[in-house]
Amino acid sequence: MSARVSLPPRVLPPAALAQIVDTIKTLAIDAVQAANSGHPGMPMGAAVMGSVLWGQFLVHDPQAPLWPDRDRFVLSAGHGSMLLYALLHLSGYDLPLAELQRFRQWGSKTPGHPEHGHTVGVEVTTGPLGTGFAAGVGMALAERFLAATYNRPGLEIVDHCTYAIVSDGDLMEGVAAEAASLAGHLGLGKLIYLYDDNHISIDGPTDLSFSEDVAARFAAYGWQVERVDGHDAAAVAGALARARAASDRPSLICCRTVIAHGSPGKAGSSASHGAPLGEAEVAATKRALGWPEDAKFLVPEAVRAVFAEQQLGQRERRLAWEAHFAAYRQAHPELAAQFLAHLEGLVPAEILAKIPSFPPGGAMATRKAGGKVLAALVAAHPTLVGGSADLAGSNGVEMAVASQSRAQPGGRAIHFGVREHGMAAVCNGLALHGGVRVFDATFLVFSDFMRGALRLSALMQLPVVHVFTHDSFWVGEDGPTHQPIEQLMSLRLIPGLHVVRPADARETAGAWRHAMQRGPGDGPTAILLTRQDLPVMPESRESIEVGAYVLWQPKGVAVVDLDGVLVATGSEVATALEAARTLEKAHGRRVRVVSMPCWEAFLAQPASYRDEVLPPALTRRLSVEAGTTFGWSRFAAHQHGLDHYGASAPGKLLAEKFGFTPAAVVARWLELP
Amino acid sequence: MSARVSLPPRVLPPAALAQIVDTIKTLAIDAVQAANSGHPGMPMGAAVMGSVLWGQFLVHDPQAPLWPDRDRFVLSAGHGSMLLYALLHLSGYDLPLAELQRFRQWGSKTPGHPEHGHTVGVEVTTGPLGTGFAAGVGMALAERFLAATYNRPGLEIVDHCTYAIVSDGDLMEGVAAEAASLAGHLGLGKLIYLYDDNHISIDGPTDLSFSEDVAARFAAYGWQVERVDGHDAAAVAGALARARAASDRPSLICCRTVIAHGSPGKAGSSASHGAPLGEAEVAATKRALGWPEDAKFLVPEAVRAVFAEQQLGQRERRLAWEAHFAAYRQAHPELAAQFLAHLEGLVPAEILAKIPSFPPGGAMATRKAGGKVLAALVAAHPTLVGGSADLAGSNGVEMAVASQSRAQPGGRAIHFGVREHGMAAVCNGLALHGGVRVFDATFLVFSDFMRGALRLSALMQLPVVHVFTHDSFWVGEDGPTHQPIEQLMSLRLIPGLHVVRPADARETAGAWRHAMQRGPGDGPTAILLTRQDLPVMPESRESIEVGAYVLWQPKGVAVVDLDGVLVATGSEVATALEAARTLEKAHGRRVRVVSMPCWEAFLAQPASYRDEVLPPALTRRLSVEAGTTFGWSRFAAHQHGLDHYGASAPGKLLAEKFGFTPAAVVARWLELP
Repeated sequence: MSARVSLPPRVLPPAALAQIVDTIKTLAIDAVQAANSGHPGMPMGAAVMGSVLWGQFLVHDPQAPLWPDRDRFVLSAGHGSMLLYALLHLSGYDLPLAELQRFRQWGSKTPGHPEHGHTVGVEVTTGPLGTGFAAGVGMALAERFLAATYNRPGLEIVDHCTYAIVSDGDLMEGVAAEAASLAGHLGLGKLIYLYDDNHISIDGPTDLSFSEDVAARFAAYGWQVERVDGHDAAAVAGALARARAASDRPSLICCRTVIAHGSPGKAGSSASHGAPLGEAEVAATKRALGWPEDAKFLVPEAVRAVFAEQQLGQRERRLAWEAHFAAYRQAHPELAAQFLAHLEGLVPAEILAKIPSFPPGGAMATRKAGGKVLAALVAAHPTLVGGSADLAGSNGVEMAVASQSRAQPGGRAIHFGVREHGMAAVCNGLALHGGVRVFDATFLVFSDFMRGALRLSALMQLPVVHVFTHDSFWVGEDGPTHQPIEQLMSLRLIPGLHVVRPADARETAGAWRHAMQRGPGDGPTAILLTRQDLPVMPESRESIEVGAYVLWQPKGVAVVDLDGVLVATGSEVATALEAARTLEKAHGRRVRVVSMPCWEAFLAQPASYRDEVLPPALTRRLSVEAGTTFGWSRFAAHQHGLDHYGASAPGKLLAEKFGFTPAAVVARWLELP
Repeated sequence: MSARVSLPPRVLPPAALAQIVDTIKTLAIDAVQAANSGHPGMPMGAAVMGSVLWGQFLVHDPQAPLWPDRDRFVLSAGHGSMLLYALLHLSGYDLPLAELQRFRQWGSKTPGHPEHGHTVGVEVTTGPLGTGFAAGVGMALAERFLAATYNRPGLEIVDHCTYAIVSDGDLMEGVAAEAASLAGHLGLGKLIYLYDDNHISIDGPTDLSFSEDVAARFAAYGWQVERVDGHDAAAVAGALARARAASDRPSLICCRTVIAHGSPGKAGSSASHGAPLGEAEVAATKRALGWPEDAKFLVPEAVRAVFAEQQLGQRERRLAWEAHFAAYRQAHPELAAQFLAHLEGLVPAEILAKIPSFPPGGAMATRKAGGKVLAALVAAHPTLVGGSADLAGSNGVEMAVASQSRAQPGGRAIHFGVREHGMAAVCNGLALHGGVRVFDATFLVFSDFMRGALRLSALMQLPVVHVFTHDSFWVGEDGPTHQPIEQLMSLRLIPGLHVVRPADARETAGAWRHAMQRGPGDGPTAILLTRQDLPVMPESRESIEVGAYVLWQPKGVAVVDLDGVLVATGSEVATALEAARTLEKAHGRRVRVVSMPCWEAFLAQPASYRDEVLPPALTRRLSVEAGTTFGWSRFAAHQHGLDHYGASAPGKLLAEKFGFTPAAVVARWLELP
């Protein structure tokens, strides 16, 4: 058992705890009523769980919200945001009562669902159910990995728990099921979830659709499971203590609760899930709780006093850790420096310098080149972790390091299993925890399965790297279910996600460099790689920061004398280049070839640079990309792509059939108006 | 117990069964070797399961592959396609040996993964793991619903089982977990899955990532679970018989198998998962099996004879059903006619005629209008089934019919729970089964969670209707996690999916009519609806078949005298209309307003019509849509949209902040070059 969890929980007198519970309930109903919008039922039903956890167990310091060894708390049932806002406010985070009074209003710190990066103390953006559950798994995994990597005997600088409150809806979602199975497999002992088992979802009682034995399911995943009365503070506290003692597996505490507990008219009813109680019922609730009926947003002085005292204790704990860390730094100065550096989330220049160069000549699949880059980064970066959804070999992301497991908690190669959505959501949690850099990998076509979590990585601006290989019909024989058509463009649609499709091994090095240069606040990067070999071109670049550049054009030809521009990405760049050369030699047509590995980076360049690459006067432009043409009209009046599903046959033959040969591009160019 | 499952299984002599098993194994390794690509290990390991199921249990008639009362078989582990192709060939489907010899080749009937609609007898396209599992749940649900709806005492015209072979990978996927929980909840007794528990996935042994107790998990879902030796034919047959007898819950038979069973050098190894065995190992395998070493694609005469005899028996069963159905038709002529009509999957004109009209005037949220249309369709169409992922009220899809449940198997309102991906995949299965028309519903932003199954519905051209409400930032207070930005466009990217975003109640009627007119082979339709009220416009149309049309322009103005075109969809049409009126009145600018509810339908119109709506000469065009501008350059040189995430605040205020008011559109127009 770690030092942290062997500490006894703080103890609050029952009366004090009860007053905290009522404060949370009334803050929640007042805020929802003021907004005339929101979800009062969940915060009321979960107020005891929240109060016991935050009042007696959670170790954090509201004055140092980024203290690395704080416990993490995830409100996976993000619609119950007022529970979290009330707890943050009471605990002393920079979230004044005025913000609670502006719940769900423009510019407030209290949006409808918790938003990481927007409100201090919110560890993860939640709302899409199941994804918070999975993010918590990633946080706990990061903690265990960092503990295994950095802790030294007697100097345990990483030692904290990850807690969550999860709902019926969370547990119905497949992404949570995937993450739960993985967490059980890995035996994440410091992952502790309280399940708000209130038997109510939006459409009514959960038994309309959900009658499985949740406890038995989680036991089957390898979790420790308990059932308690979620309104019995002592029972919840006892279960939390036992969960902390179970160090070899995650814990689920099924808390039977009543939604809108305390509301005389709406307790237990789905009507309280997503709508204000109404003024009359708010008043009736306050009466029933023995609360001043006319008071709004009332925090009794006694409650303030409890939390003020608690803040002192929390601060002491944090300062004790600081002292502990100082001792660690003295004993292990290099490790300490490394730990702090990677907490920032930025990749040091000396690690970026290890990205290999690829001399022109020969041919190499970009997935293979990506594997070589990754190998170099893994060797240089001690907290780069990641893996694949059971396609590590195919994705080229097999790593020459230990696999992550119970036995090897310091292992950096994560076997996510065939769980794409869970993988991406767990990676969000790893990135949110900090101290590590994270990547995941699968086939591009299966990015569809991950889209919920991809969007959240972009919304939270997390620097996760998503490696997607087998990026076109060139997959070949596996057929249309495995051949991406629309995925490339659909990733480009996600605001904040950078999508890089390198043309060869050299641009692949650039893609990884670009991805690793993006830090927290910049957002995720998707790197799209080929299964098939591509020529390594002398014309290509090893930096893709400009997003697009002139790869080639006939020598000594002024822009005004050019016939037009071929704009291509990835595997189509070499095809376009060969087509342009043929157009010059065989047809006297002088065509510029632009390689555009990253739209987002290109669009961020100054207009002058963009006009240099794609001169406005050159209106005869043809995009060439082995995917949907949709969206390319932005850059090229004419498009050469694939607007239908693929077929099962060898990739080379498909290239003939689908028109992705130099000859086909030449023919298309010659037909342009 | 139903009549069907009380029939004893056919019995094959063990020696005959063993020869079938070896035939399947050798056909699989020969085909993969010939293609030099594919997955030999799974068909070898699952050959006993496949032989017992198809040889002794499956009721179907290869000469009448669409016989409605056939058992359904799903190969959820689609990469083992050669197992299915071998079984189809041997059983007598129109899949000659020559096609097996062209496995994975251009134009063959034997693509890398099974494709429904491409190869006769393939009930569902599989490959993306977990989705076949979920589709089977939909098929079994369709069967039970139709049985409850149409069967009459002594005249059971619907009475068949749904079988599947599922893999480790299937069971790791969240979509399968969602569907499994739902199947257990609903107690689908005629759903019987064989789990190919071979302990091997692509990256190696499954215990790298998957150590849960699968049997206990499925028991927790409410399934009957057994464990057997998957290479022991008698054990598999016994378990199948017991599974058929369990009429109150689905069954999972965990068959412990060895991947590439029979290969002396590669059995039990992940090397056999996704690569040919190699010529030498193929030969060694044949030697070990006592098979002629030089023979390729050998089907012994004795095996042919077994299946020839079986075909006679299957035909007899089918003919018995035909006679049974004739009796049914005599007793219940109207029901019989209805049953047959809905099997076609086309919605009769008299039902379409029931779609209500919405007189202009007033305001109504399109989700509300959609609910009214749905109510009319539900009243008129006896096998229209569907529901929501726990948002029925919010989506406007509450139905005045019984809920689907164990107790009410004829219930048409399906409560899918908070399981978006499972919902869409189950709907695919409902549509694949036939006899029903299907819709599902959730918030537009959560379409991201369903994308894997959405793509499959489009790839299989299934007429599923996907209702997505809360289709823009107008969601309001729920904030960015609930406000779609890129989803609208990302749905348009999926080939074959029609995306309709109606401008008001009138176009909403048109959207539903359009969706219901699409039948099998046409593909799915997504209908995007608002949370907020929209004016019901006299200018809008109740048919949207042309995809886009001129909604309004200043009276008596020739095209050449127009200032340009505002192209809008959904909630932005009324905004654009008001802007255009202001532009005329206040600024003397004559602007046409085009409503474009469905890009796909518009692009299918003749060029002459498209040029009429968007005259090429009118190059000053501005698109107005409350979502990403990405892609709009196809129709409009200028775009007014939302290329960043939303915010939590009342929708009306967000419209001001984000520029979605008539005044903002007017200002934008006046700024156009």
